[in-house]
Amino acid sequence: MEALRNALPNDEVTADPTVPAEIAVVANPAPGVLAALPGLRFVQSAWAGVDGLLTDPTFPKHLPLARLVDPALGEQMAQAVAAHVMALHRQAPAYRAQQAQGIWRQLPQPLAQDRPVGFLGYGELAKACAKLLTDIGFPVAFWSRSEGDLEAVLASDIVVNLLPLTPQTRGFLSASLFARMKPGAALVNVARGAHLVEADLLAALASGQLSHAVLDVFKTEPLPAAHPFWRHPQVTVLPHVAAITDPVSASRQIAANIARFRAGEPLAGLVSSDAGY
Amino acid sequence: MEALRNALPNDEVTADPTVPAEIAVVANPAPGVLAALPGLRFVQSAWAGVDGLLTDPTFPKHLPLARLVDPALGEQMAQAVAAHVMALHRQAPAYRAQQAQGIWRQLPQPLAQDRPVGFLGYGELAKACAKLLTDIGFPVAFWSRSEGDLEAVLASDIVVNLLPLTPQTRGFLSASLFARMKPGAALVNVARGAHLVEADLLAALASGQLSHAVLDVFKTEPLPAAHPFWRHPQVTVLPHVAAITDPVSASRQIAANIARFRAGEPLAGLVSSDAGY
Repeated sequence: MEALRNALPNDEVTADPTVPAEIAVVANPAPGVLAALPGLRFVQSAWAGVDGLLTDPTFPKHLPLARLVDPALGEQMAQAVAAHVMALHRQAPAYRAQQAQGIWRQLPQPLAQDRPVGFLGYGELAKACAKLLTDIGFPVAFWSRSEGDLEAVLASDIVVNLLPLTPQTRGFLSASLFARMKPGAALVNVARGAHLVEADLLAALASGQLSHAVLDVFKTEPLPAAHPFWRHPQVTVLPHVAAITDPVSASRQIAANIARFRAGEPLAGLVSSDAGY
Repeated sequence: MEALRNALPNDEVTADPTVPAEIAVVANPAPGVLAALPGLRFVQSAWAGVDGLLTDPTFPKHLPLARLVDPALGEQMAQAVAAHVMALHRQAPAYRAQQAQGIWRQLPQPLAQDRPVGFLGYGELAKACAKLLTDIGFPVAFWSRSEGDLEAVLASDIVVNLLPLTPQTRGFLSASLFARMKPGAALVNVARGAHLVEADLLAALASGQLSHAVLDVFKTEPLPAAHPFWRHPQVTVLPHVAAITDPVSASRQIAANIARFRAGEPLAGLVSSDAGY
């Protein structure tokens, strides 16, 4: 709230959902809250993913909705993904398993230049990741709804999911996709938990088709205590921390988008109801 | 041997230490082997560190000795160190501990731009690491015998040791150095095990002065089965894999240095007996 107020000094900024607002800045509002605002004209998300809003049947679909587009989010995501990719590249899970068993054994180690990384999704966040990984030396392939090469992504040693969550991409990380991946490849999911069919991942890890999964997102968050991922040696569990919204930077981007809305200019991150993101 | 023979097609290349060689290409030869070669004129190491040769009392000190200088070694080291630094930066040890206990908790996460990394040592390998880390976004400080700022290195969040092992640097990573580091900082040792006073590291980890250590090298290698590092949750044990000599690339560099020796040109990596590396 403080960061938003600083970024919007001439506006009345309130956290009270009963005040009849003209513009709503939201993360995951309770169903019905936005529908109850008769004067609402524009909804700006404080998150990059708006799947939660679009699957809420009470969401006022006639209003313009913008995702957060924030370079700071891209930097956070790029550094998180680079850390996961570097750990997989340098075989951290295998050395961790060796350490737990007191085993001293050197494993063959290629250079990053010989370790292709593939991206599912190629929006702002994936582009920021791909740029950093390219700078480090990894060959990068990508695929999205509109461009790229899915076969090259699936032939990569490490596949990073950054798709938007839409009806088309829900459950996309499933047995049939894993079967097309390079045997022994690793998966990094930093998009949405609902992209992943969890039972299919467990089967692919058990068969060796996949060697390891780094999961930052889950169908149910927090991940339930009894979930097998917590204790799975081939799964790295992270509590949805890849790219946390930075209040100051995000408020600046949100204020700029509100100014665009009022000036009738094109919005950053305007959600297409056709595309679903 | 195959890579060396390919790089030196006009030379007789043998693994038999009793053949009276003019030039010896060595890693860690048994004491006395080099001293027994009367016609020896030049010793070329296949490793970047020559401390093992210099501390061997039988080593023929009157001969020119060259360390391996190989850009491939620098790339390997840079990628290894970047992986360790990124893991520490993104708090992988803390999240691993949380996963082991089934804890879902988001920790504050700065950007790399706010995470200074310091280098002890600033030779070819450290420079390759510093370049990659700078590209990723980390502020980098360094210190060596001849240049740099030790206080800035010790004020860093992550300190990487890449000093050469000499009588002056043996045991340099000790309680008095740890006490001058930023409380809660992490240590990465990818140089030599003898740089580290192991008991002092265990004490610094226990007190919280240091939060974590990534160790690729040890006083005794392989690390003995009973060593406390194996089961220490604040120590990542790696089996001396940060920068493994690549036979093809190293053989090319070695052949070029042998050509320089024969032409009377300045040698790459000529060891100074004064400096000890």
